[in-house]
Parts: sequence; structure tokens; C-alpha cells
Amino acid sequence: MMGLFITIEGIDGAGKTTHLKWLGSYFEVRGRQVVVTREPGGTPLGESLRKLLLESDGAIHPETESLLMFAARREHLERVITPALREGKVVVCDRFTDATFAYQGWGSGVSPARLDVLEEWVQRGLQPDLTLFFDVPALVGQQRLGSDRQRDRFERERTDFFERVRAGYLDRAARFPSRIRIIDATPGIDIVRQSLEHIVASY
Amino acid sequence: MMGLFITIEGIDGAGKTTHLKWLGSYFEVRGRQVVVTREPGGTPLGESLRKLLLESDGAIHPETESLLMFAARREHLERVITPALREGKVVVCDRFTDATFAYQGWGSGVSPARLDVLEEWVQRGLQPDLTLFFDVPALVGQQRLGSDRQRDRFERERTDFFERVRAGYLDRAARFPSRIRIIDATPGIDIVRQSLEHIVASY
Repeated sequence: MMGLFITIEGIDGAGKTTHLKWLGSYFEVRGRQVVVTREPGGTPLGESLRKLLLESDGAIHPETESLLMFAARREHLERVITPALREGKVVVCDRFTDATFAYQGWGSGVSPARLDVLEEWVQRGLQPDLTLFFDVPALVGQQRLGSDRQRDRFERERTDFFERVRAGYLDRAARFPSRIRIIDATPGIDIVRQSLEHIVASY
Repeated sequence: MMGLFITIEGIDGAGKTTHLKWLGSYFEVRGRQVVVTREPGGTPLGESLRKLLLESDGAIHPETESLLMFAARREHLERVITPALREGKVVVCDRFTDATFAYQGWGSGVSPARLDVLEEWVQRGLQPDLTLFFDVPALVGQQRLGSDRQRDRFERERTDFFERVRAGYLDRAARFPSRIRIIDATPGIDIVRQSLEHIVASY
């Protein structure tokens, strides 16, 4: 059986986490072995880097952030993603390279052409089979996050930052229309889930 | 006054640290402002990554190591090295990119052609004005480290690893003969210092 590599993308507050869990169960009840993972993270090194990136109070240059994201990704591919795909598993990953283009690229100003170089260096052509982009306007995402939840460094960033990130995701979706599916995540969970189920039914 | 960027290279036990301190004083007594720094390290992020790399018990893939080294370097250039050079200071750095080629490249098997890509990405053509490579056979270096000193992950590696690293440094020196000066570091400190003083006298 062939492995299946699905990535979940969206700005903070788009509801990724809820749909990620459902997606894992969807494939499990159909008899597939599922690995649910996330970026940055997914390995001990990746989780250390995640902590370092999210908790950093002092500004880290966005190009440095990009290199750290791709370092975590290189390890994640080596230790988790590629072995699972070789064993025919379904890998569901909460954020992947499109997030680096959206956040560090469009959000923080790193040139997409420079990120292309790192993507090729680390992935050597490997791409997800399917990317689900949960799309909400930045203000909706921000409102959903509310104020009761502890907001990390990225979540403290301004709404206009998230609008740039969203524009970055939409640009990626336009560049890779057969891989990236845009799901309108503004409606309630049930309606979004119907869109999601419709898409994954063919995988 | 023009800034001056000097890097110090050599396998563990080559005596870099001793000569690094002398070099800093050499320029200070001549009225220059000196920044002594090191890689990986030199910034709060760099020191965190250094800790992560040196203390990691589980193996980190050498390509991941390379990306982390260049991430630390990107930040180091941004926050420390480039500003100091712009202010006309002398920057003396304990290890830089030649170490990544020697350790991760020749030592651990990452293709030098792939490291070239990261070097260009991070440095955009910037190179040290002078690199001092303190050369000792691996066995001499290992013996000098002795056993009373706490040996970190890299220092625990085998002698043949260090012979590959040394070969990597010599290869770099052959590729960049006007930048990299080889100093035979097998003799006693006084004799090595004379070679060093002879070289830096023209800077």
C-alpha cells in the first residue's frame, strides 16, 4: 500500500487542530495506519527548536527562522515522515513548507525565491500528496483565538501580519492548484467538515 | 578604519583557544577595538543551538547539523559580525564556515557542493579577510585534550573522524590559498606564536 502525505495549513485560529484530529480518525477507521505530527516539531530536536522559536522574546531574523524551520524539517523528514510513508502509512502533518513561505516569506519578508532554494535543498523534490488550506480572514482567526488562551510569540503578531500570511497561502494555492485545496473555514465546524470529507473521499 | 574579519580554525586539541586570546590582545595593544566571538554561538540563539548540538545524545543527521550551523551563522552575521566590521572593529571568530565543511562535510559526509549552496545563501559572498588554520595530526590533538577535561559529543568522536576533518581543512586551504594560512601547531606554544605573529604583522 502506498503512503499518503497530507499537510494541513492555515493561519492561527483557522480551526486546523479540530479538523486534523478528525482527519486522523477518518483514515484509521478505514484501516490505515496514521501518523499525526506537526511542524515545527515532530522530533525531539524539532520540539526543542519549536520551543526556541515560539518563546524567543528577542527578535530572531526571519532568514534565521527560515533556516531553523528547514533544519527541523530535514530531521522530521529523515526520522518520521519518510520512514512512515515507506511503510505505507498516512502522515497527517500540522503545517509544512507552505507555512514557511506564508509566515517567514509573505509575513516577515523573506524572498520566496530564496525559500525555494532551501525547499529544494531539504526536500529534493518531495511534496505532500495533498495540502488542505483552511482559509479564514485574519480578523476571524484572531477573534477565534480569543484572549483566554495563552498567546505565543507568533499569535501576538498583528492582524495585518496574518493578512499577509493568508495572502501567502493563497499565492501558494494558485501556484500548486492540484496539490493545495482551499477550504473556506469561516462557517461552523459541521459545514467545514463536509467540505473536508468531500475532498478526502477520493484519497 | 576598515573592519578586519579573522577566523581561527583547527581540529579539537590544536590549541586554537590559547592563540585566539593572544590574537585579541595583539590588536588591542595596537589600538584596535576587538570583538572575540565563536561558532556555533556568539548570540543568545547561537549559544542555545551550540548547547543543543554539543549535548545531543541522539544522533542528529549531519545535514540537519549543517542547517543549524548556518542558522546560527546567519544570526551571528546579522547581530555581531557585520555590525562590528561596519564600525571598523577587528572580529576574531573561533571557527566559521570552513569548520562546517571540515566537520559536517568531510567528517560526517555532507556533500561539499550542497554546503556551497548554504554558504552562498547565508553569506552572499562575505568571506573572512584571513583564516588561520592551526594544523596538528588527529592523534596529537586527541592526546592534548587528555582525559581530565569534560569531553563533549564532538570530542568523543574517533581519531579517524578527526583525520577526515583535518583533510577537509587542508582541502579548503588548497581551494582558498590567499585567505587560509596553514600554521603547523605541533611544536610548543612559543614557536607557533612566532609563526602567528609573522602572519598577522601584515594586517
